[in-house]
Amino acid sequence: MFGAVLYGPRDLRFEERDTPKIVQPTDAIIRISAACVCGSDLWPYRGIQPIASPTPMGHEYCGIVEEVGNAVTSVKPGQFVIGSFFASDNTCSTCQMGYQSSCQHRELVGGAQAPLLRVPLADGTLVSTPDIPSEDLIPSLLALSDVMGTGWFAADAANVKPGSTVVVVGDGAVGLLGVLSAKQMGAKRIVAMSRHASRQRLAREFGATDIVIERGDEGIARIKELTNGIGADSVLECVGTQESMMQTIKSTRPGGSIGYVGVPYGVSLDGKQLFFSHVHLHGGPAPVRRYLPELIKLVLNGKINPGKVFDLTLPLDQVAEGYRAMDERRAIKTLLLPNGMR
Amino acid sequence: MFGAVLYGPRDLRFEERDTPKIVQPTDAIIRISAACVCGSDLWPYRGIQPIASPTPMGHEYCGIVEEVGNAVTSVKPGQFVIGSFFASDNTCSTCQMGYQSSCQHRELVGGAQAPLLRVPLADGTLVSTPDIPSEDLIPSLLALSDVMGTGWFAADAANVKPGSTVVVVGDGAVGLLGVLSAKQMGAKRIVAMSRHASRQRLAREFGATDIVIERGDEGIARIKELTNGIGADSVLECVGTQESMMQTIKSTRPGGSIGYVGVPYGVSLDGKQLFFSHVHLHGGPAPVRRYLPELIKLVLNGKINPGKVFDLTLPLDQVAEGYRAMDERRAIKTLLLPNGMR
Repeated sequence: MFGAVLYGPRDLRFEERDTPKIVQPTDAIIRISAACVCGSDLWPYRGIQPIASPTPMGHEYCGIVEEVGNAVTSVKPGQFVIGSFFASDNTCSTCQMGYQSSCQHRELVGGAQAPLLRVPLADGTLVSTPDIPSEDLIPSLLALSDVMGTGWFAADAANVKPGSTVVVVGDGAVGLLGVLSAKQMGAKRIVAMSRHASRQRLAREFGATDIVIERGDEGIARIKELTNGIGADSVLECVGTQESMMQTIKSTRPGGSIGYVGVPYGVSLDGKQLFFSHVHLHGGPAPVRRYLPELIKLVLNGKINPGKVFDLTLPLDQVAEGYRAMDERRAIKTLLLPNGMR
Repeated sequence: MFGAVLYGPRDLRFEERDTPKIVQPTDAIIRISAACVCGSDLWPYRGIQPIASPTPMGHEYCGIVEEVGNAVTSVKPGQFVIGSFFASDNTCSTCQMGYQSSCQHRELVGGAQAPLLRVPLADGTLVSTPDIPSEDLIPSLLALSDVMGTGWFAADAANVKPGSTVVVVGDGAVGLLGVLSAKQMGAKRIVAMSRHASRQRLAREFGATDIVIERGDEGIARIKELTNGIGADSVLECVGTQESMMQTIKSTRPGGSIGYVGVPYGVSLDGKQLFFSHVHLHGGPAPVRRYLPELIKLVLNGKINPGKVFDLTLPLDQVAEGYRAMDERRAIKTLLLPNGMR
């Protein structure tokens, strides 16, 4: 089969790869209905996170189970399933407490930008839908695999409640879905920090009540103006840089909560500054598995439509253009359809 | 009057000071029933936190109201009161959300190691007892002014619940009262990290079920052994150094919570390490005012006895020896009685 392989900075190739096979009896092979490019794929693509050797790319996936190992009991061939980028057993004590992305036996899933994918720990990782979903729901269901689950975790970690005032730092797909999540959780006021017209538009569609285009000290001053001078109850950090983290901390009221889901690169927090900020800080790799059953219901019932973040759809063999468009910020997020579909 | 004044590293003098007067109509003057030396007083005493000029010391206090300003309505002369080291109006939105130590009009209270003390924002800051308490309760009531409120906040910020497994990093007075707080909140297992026999004994008396003497990697390994390999639900950081903060983060399970109350000196947190630790982090200067009504009841009802942390009692004029004893770790915490008492 052909799939996406990264060779080095901005050197993404669509090339022949070994077809995935069952390796462990707990594995499943799924036929990808749709894949996509993640904001975090851009870190190695841009060379900021170096790779040791050519790397099959893609960790967001949904599709039809093709084959399962002997030990798999909860999913079977023919079912439509969604899973997380971290495979998890969903039985260890860490999973049972809802932190499946820190599962004691977790494995990274990789190589989903391809027609077929091996998913380890299939029983713990995959969640099936009651029926095969209609094609128009595929983008929203795919989004649950990472980007929507991550935006949801950001809002949950930031303790968004009915009536909360929320700020979202970062207007990438995760930030935009953080807006949608905060809205769904009942936030009263949602401030999206964004300078891009198309992203502002989608933020408003997802529920943002205010847009702030300023950054740094000016951005913080604008947030204070909007929040009685004290900062927001909940702030979602969806970028992962030092600047965005400082923006986040200084936009939060004393006693308020931060949910941070942007993988931090070069971020260092001064203990004393954090101490006197009085904020609650929680984040990390989103425990997507915890949220999948609930989020699948919300999509199937038409309550949320996270698939709207895909503003570029390409056949899988044009995956390199999908990366370029996101790298150059021409696209928010690229949906990839295996050849032969549509 | 005579009070404690710090001139420089280990140069603490008991000398003539101006008698405090009402400056603002919202002030109260209280006659100190007992004062004490705080672990945080040792930072400037040791020269780690430099002082610009001779500084009246002491920020933990309780006593009898001597005089109030024109605008004070909630306390009156003759009442026994306790307040926090941060004076707060208790009416601003930050106070109303329970973060009085970040009050928008907060003022540091200073100079309590003396017979008389000026307390700003008296209505918002001071909480009176129903009657004048008996002398044997004074140490426990004094402890509520900071050290007990801080230990309680550490346990609250670390989300201690009935059945929780708790680790307390730091065996100073705050850490020991963190143990007491965790016990009071229903923790099932409480691990105190301590190498000092007298502190271990008090920790056990306050409710510690296990003592760990190891530090660093060995200490973390011991905590993991005691917590099914994953770390504790709640960890209280009661020191404020880089080493103790790392000990804390690595002793917490994914999804667990840290309450940190040791004022950080030279602490820097790596964003990525924190991210993948999956912990909840909350702390800062304890909002003692929030807890005072509840903690006063617990003391008056005999449910808690935080005054046990005072293992050295001196007349106020021997305050310098009180500092020395704590600096040399001969005493956990020094109680100071104004001359003429006892």
